[in-house]
Amino acid sequence: MEVLRYTPSSSVLVTGFEPFGGSGLNPSAEVAQALHGRALGAEATVVGVVLPCAFGDALQALAEALRQHRPRLVLALGQAEGRTDLSIERVALNVDDARIPDNRGRQPVDEPVVPGAPAACFSTLPIKAMVAGLKAAGHPASISQTAGTFVCNHVFYGLQHALAGSGVRSGFMHVPLLPQQAAQAPGLSLPSMTLAQQVAGVQEALRIALQWEGEGADLRRPGGALN
Amino acid sequence: MEVLRYTPSSSVLVTGFEPFGGSGLNPSAEVAQALHGRALGAEATVVGVVLPCAFGDALQALAEALRQHRPRLVLALGQAEGRTDLSIERVALNVDDARIPDNRGRQPVDEPVVPGAPAACFSTLPIKAMVAGLKAAGHPASISQTAGTFVCNHVFYGLQHALAGSGVRSGFMHVPLLPQQAAQAPGLSLPSMTLAQQVAGVQEALRIALQWEGEGADLRRPGGALN
Amino acid sequence: MEVLRYTPSSSVLVTGFEPFGGSGLNPSAEVAQALHGRALGAEATVVGVVLPCAFGDALQALAEALRQHRPRLVLALGQAEGRTDLSIERVALNVDDARIPDNRGRQPVDEPVVPGAPAACFSTLPIKAMVAGLKAAGHPASISQTAGTFVCNHVFYGLQHALAGSGVRSGFMHVPLLPQQAAQAPGLSLPSMTLAQQVAGVQEALRIALQWEGEGADLRRPGGALN
Amino acid sequence: MEVLRYTPSSSVLVTGFEPFGGSGLNPSAEVAQALHGRALGAEATVVGVVLPCAFGDALQALAEALRQHRPRLVLALGQAEGRTDLSIERVALNVDDARIPDNRGRQPVDEPVVPGAPAACFSTLPIKAMVAGLKAAGHPASISQTAGTFVCNHVFYGLQHALAGSGVRSGFMHVPLLPQQAAQAPGLSLPSMTLAQQVAGVQEALRIALQWEGEGADLRRPGGALN
Repeated sequence: MEVLRYTPSSSVLVTGFEPFGGSGLNPSAEVAQALHGRALGAEATVVGVVLPCAFGDALQALAEALRQHRPRLVLALGQAEGRTDLSIERVALNVDDARIPDNRGRQPVDEPVVPGAPAACFSTLPIKAMVAGLKAAGHPASISQTAGTFVCNHVFYGLQHALAGSGVRSGFMHVPLLPQQAAQAPGLSLPSMTLAQQVAGVQEALRIALQWEGEGADLRRPGGALN
Repeated sequence: MEVLRYTPSSSVLVTGFEPFGGSGLNPSAEVAQALHGRALGAEATVVGVVLPCAFGDALQALAEALRQHRPRLVLALGQAEGRTDLSIERVALNVDDARIPDNRGRQPVDEPVVPGAPAACFSTLPIKAMVAGLKAAGHPASISQTAGTFVCNHVFYGLQHALAGSGVRSGFMHVPLLPQQAAQAPGLSLPSMTLAQQVAGVQEALRIALQWEGEGADLRRPGGALN
Repeated sequence: MEVLRYTPSSSVLVTGFEPFGGSGLNPSAEVAQALHGRALGAEATVVGVVLPCAFGDALQALAEALRQHRPRLVLALGQAEGRTDLSIERVALNVDDARIPDNRGRQPVDEPVVPGAPAACFSTLPIKAMVAGLKAAGHPASISQTAGTFVCNHVFYGLQHALAGSGVRSGFMHVPLLPQQAAQAPGLSLPSMTLAQQVAGVQEALRIALQWEGEGADLRRPGGALN
Repeated sequence: MEVLRYTPSSSVLVTGFEPFGGSGLNPSAEVAQALHGRALGAEATVVGVVLPCAFGDALQALAEALRQHRPRLVLALGQAEGRTDLSIERVALNVDDARIPDNRGRQPVDEPVVPGAPAACFSTLPIKAMVAGLKAAGHPASISQTAGTFVCNHVFYGLQHALAGSGVRSGFMHVPLLPQQAAQAPGLSLPSMTLAQQVAGVQEALRIALQWEGEGADLRRPGGALN
């Protein structure tokens, strides 16, 4: 994925993924579609795009969306079975290591997302301000120190690499399962969050991110992990 | 708490608890109040009652509600921090063992709820049918093998003891935190469920329970735990 | 299983289970065998017995061991995948509800262990003193409010029913997986405890239980759960 | 911390940390001290060093140990409350974000470990071979995608930065609490591992690492996370 430079439009790009892993739903796609076309204040409008859940193909679709919409802000979303809240990722790793095949049957192990590129890229979103603002507004949220090593991390790394140094802030948020997905898991009690709550939370997160314009601007609050 | 006998009315009693443990909210009270007055089919109407979160006092308030409303069905609700779904309890234990003081400052340790009464009472609700029906309707739900040993179990045991052999089916459901409660927990990522989802789920659970009239009637499906 | 009355010998009965659920090992059997023949002070000697992991058969083997050894104290052990410490059970339920078939292919659902008997039996061991003493000696330990509804609970209930009112104290402890079992679980990070640590902990637990002779004698310390 | 170049000795450096967070023990220090002086085959001997649990100071002590011992292999260890197994870290992040103060009272938030250096460094140990070999030998082990953002990650990043491109393989392993630490945690059931098991596991891990000489050599097996 090549590094991009463009003059930003008023678009805010929100991506989700098509369903994978045996489910017929993916909350990240539902949220992206629900927010598509929604105005964020006077100056920004959401463009929602659904990416294939496949290594490589997902980044091609992302690159096309970036070129077409020239967004001023990007938030990629992904489903995280087992997570309880709006989980804002701190860092993308330059590695694909798939426990299961993706939707095209590919299962890369310990391959770089972008050969020769740095080991990791930090989120350029104001992640601490987003967590603090979400919690103040009643949305469960936290910083996550790992986005895994599957297609979510793959897209996150590709996104950060493409926009590195561009001045366009971008990052990734994992969202919980939808209640109807958790209801179908046999013999497990998995956490979930309603679509309405997810949509409201993501919209609030975008609103906060737009308020914290300026590269590197963020609240300075602990959000780390001891291990 | 004495054993009760009465001719049932059309009321379905749903109880919740006042807030405790430092929170200003308790989802069980919110659900009970939201459902108060709601018709369940042609023949049943919900009476929602909020109980004090205190050993002894809670059972007094429950006994008063039972005498006043002579319900045909009772579902007591309680908040369960850390649980992810609508968690239908199988059994109430005849023991109070409090890790923290209740709202009146009492902290009983290894005392019986009802001295001289049996060690435990099973739920008389169709708990397997309720879990199956809730899941089929998209509500995350499961059987729980323990209601703990705090005020929730205290009320559950008192309820089952009071209605033992009466033909009135009764039981207990633990519900997750509300999102705004989970958002306030410092440094923890706790599961939550929106009030709308909880209200819809509890109403569906009541509807199923009313369909399975007749003592002991239930689906026969595994819902146990290995340990 | 009938209620037993006998004049106790100096034996302390420790039971474990044969392997189940696909594993070739069961720590509870290993501990029972390791402690077999060991003297506990001047007046007590461990008899270790391995029970089949099968509904019904396990209780037959237990009844035979009780009749043969007339133990003065009984501690039944069982394996608990996912648990981290020496987990002393508070209560046995009069219900079998199996998620998986037992070693003879039986899978009872919502059947009583002993038809017509009480819903539950409390442990008659000094469970609070055992937890406090184990922790003071450096052994991770806790009270558990549920022994599940599989063969472990089945044996626990049968044991408590057989010795109810006999003056012989008895109860159940769940133990973690052995490290080599956890090492074989694909893709999961399960807690474990070495056999040496388990053997030392169970021996210490027996030593404490023997010190607290006298029905109902125990420390009075909180050991409950909020939910 | 400057980049180091040296001709390796036969030493294998294993570091641990002094106790922190209110505990009087730290398993990582105990393991490092237990292995100190132990021969690994004919050609390698362990040097065990205990580092202060303090940002900055820990890296100074590490740099001194590297200069003094010129190790051919380095494994830094750290305590991970809540983890169940030998948890081999994949990647170190160039960020300090402390939830609690370190042992000198410092609590950096979102500061780089090494200003101007890359966002992350991957472990250069054969982490997949180590996990596979440990599990085959009966030691619970797994790949971890995050070492947190406290002093453990700080030392891990500093280590990888100092030896980047040197040909000396290095990395980090988190180890569980010791049983006596878990026994002291009030009201929690934390996983633990005995010191003997930890020492044997770390020694086996070092043995495997020494067998896989040659930069980048490793097994190619899935060890990632979906999220």
